[in-house]
Amino acid sequence: MSENTPKRTDVNELGEFGLIEHLTKGYKTVQKSTLTGVGDDGAILDHDGLLTVVSTDLLVEGIHFDLMYVPLKHLGYKSVIVNLSDICAMNAIPKQITMSIALSNRFSVEAMEEFYKGVYAACNEYGVDLVGGDTTSSTKGLIISVTALGVVDAEHVSYRYGAKKGDIICVTGDLGAAYLGLQILEREKQLYVDNPDIKPDLEEQDYLIRRQLKPEARTDIINELRKADLIPTSMIDVSDGLASDLKHILTQSKVGANLEEVHIPIRQEAELMAIKFKLDPVTTALSGGEDYELLFTIDPKDFEKIKFMADVKIIGEITDEKDGYNLISSQGNIHPVTAQGWKHLQ
Amino acid sequence: MSENTPKRTDVNELGEFGLIEHLTKGYKTVQKSTLTGVGDDGAILDHDGLLTVVSTDLLVEGIHFDLMYVPLKHLGYKSVIVNLSDICAMNAIPKQITMSIALSNRFSVEAMEEFYKGVYAACNEYGVDLVGGDTTSSTKGLIISVTALGVVDAEHVSYRYGAKKGDIICVTGDLGAAYLGLQILEREKQLYVDNPDIKPDLEEQDYLIRRQLKPEARTDIINELRKADLIPTSMIDVSDGLASDLKHILTQSKVGANLEEVHIPIRQEAELMAIKFKLDPVTTALSGGEDYELLFTIDPKDFEKIKFMADVKIIGEITDEKDGYNLISSQGNIHPVTAQGWKHLQ
Repeated sequence: MSENTPKRTDVNELGEFGLIEHLTKGYKTVQKSTLTGVGDDGAILDHDGLLTVVSTDLLVEGIHFDLMYVPLKHLGYKSVIVNLSDICAMNAIPKQITMSIALSNRFSVEAMEEFYKGVYAACNEYGVDLVGGDTTSSTKGLIISVTALGVVDAEHVSYRYGAKKGDIICVTGDLGAAYLGLQILEREKQLYVDNPDIKPDLEEQDYLIRRQLKPEARTDIINELRKADLIPTSMIDVSDGLASDLKHILTQSKVGANLEEVHIPIRQEAELMAIKFKLDPVTTALSGGEDYELLFTIDPKDFEKIKFMADVKIIGEITDEKDGYNLISSQGNIHPVTAQGWKHLQ
Repeated sequence: MSENTPKRTDVNELGEFGLIEHLTKGYKTVQKSTLTGVGDDGAILDHDGLLTVVSTDLLVEGIHFDLMYVPLKHLGYKSVIVNLSDICAMNAIPKQITMSIALSNRFSVEAMEEFYKGVYAACNEYGVDLVGGDTTSSTKGLIISVTALGVVDAEHVSYRYGAKKGDIICVTGDLGAAYLGLQILEREKQLYVDNPDIKPDLEEQDYLIRRQLKPEARTDIINELRKADLIPTSMIDVSDGLASDLKHILTQSKVGANLEEVHIPIRQEAELMAIKFKLDPVTTALSGGEDYELLFTIDPKDFEKIKFMADVKIIGEITDEKDGYNLISSQGNIHPVTAQGWKHLQ
């Protein structure tokens, strides 16, 4: 086998982010139109001042989703959303997607129709066009690859770098609910596997389960920022968890941060369910992932513009790099944040 | 399981092209910038007259490649090339790619380094930038998803539709060799599986094996067409086989074709090896696939421009739709062509 080389380093030693960093380290782009390549939510290509943002994701059954409890229609919807969210994270408006699927022969045409109903529902909801893709067989399960394209003017684009000391850290919506929805679904799956006669008890947790199965991309926030004439100094979407995603901004901006524990937005349903699962609600919000909210920093001079945006919460402040990455508890204690995101390579 | 619906149609009843056609039938795009969506080699997006071409492919271990005989470096190279070839097929120049991989834990970091050596070699050879991607785990094998982006002026783009009665059918390079290279590799794999002590006998068939393992994208032809001020009336790349790929042009252009058997370009190595494998060389050239040559039609008034292009062969003529799709043998006999491409869904 060609992959048998003398030295063998397990990919788990590097992890998901580590591997791609390792493989792309030192790589230099050559095209004049390539403004940003690997290392942000999307690549930025310049077409005479109008920027095209490109983002791509690969979703593998058994790693990223479990068809025991994810309806195919929801899966189709979510596959699109996670990519639109990456486009939003560059402060761009998504316009087109391509959708490629590889499927084993256990999937029927009708199953794929369900999946595409979800794809079209997302395209319709966000005014995005499906423009291409590829359909092929797989030796096992369903594999989904989506590429999204968006546009943004050169002056509006937000990168992961750009946060400055004193900037205000903002996040949209609330955090941790999608992770708790997943815990409920996983628990009911386990009970079902142990006893198929049992009825799933979703505890009327519509909100938590919807956050897991049917997330949304915050194009509304991008439009609101545009209307308020406010350009974030840095931005990312919360896919791996606040702790990990903010860490990307800090690393690329070479700054530190203080997060205020009391200001981290957690819905009451999420708080109660976290406790029920014997989880700390704040840790869940910090490390849960899959919220697909926008996390961004703004210059303090723009405070007046953000103040009245109903779904944007101020959760902390950017500091000097040497001051580290901390969570300030309600009692005023300082806890260093470890960015343990939601890693798929385990 | 969510895919258990009352009616169950096996995807094989529709086949690879049929499934994607079925799932996208009746779909209408809404974005002004979407010029062409699903149904050609790439989608075309308009950015104020400069068109962006987007193409994407999903390659699955055990379906599209076999690591028993494909070195990872070659696989990385080829994964890029097949997408660049799709960009060329729209008469565009490739500029950027994204590369996503899902891998099982049998792959080491060193194995992935080999794969990326091939990716970078292709990027370097074609002056294309790697601008993004995703790395994740798979439950089985290696899965590769590449999206390529290219640019073309509005007046130069070539679609699959556009061929007119009387147009000259051209193809670049030679056909069938990649398929025969695959046959040699498959044969040696079988012998190895039966007796691991046996030495592979590649019969010094460097050309055939290179055509299979290290294909190239014909950006040189795109540049030559540009220099000659020649815009094909339709174009596609030969990935599934001449018979099947020309059929796409005929269907979308609503025309027929006569192919001249004697003019179909087959290298002597390919002819001899086909005979050795008890295959008809012309059938191999028609149905082999993976040649990644360009197949295009030109207006007869452009004949003078094409005549002296060394690597372009005239292989037939576009006819009325009602006259069908035929191969004219060296004896002048007319054989209807059945477009049996290289289907992955079998």
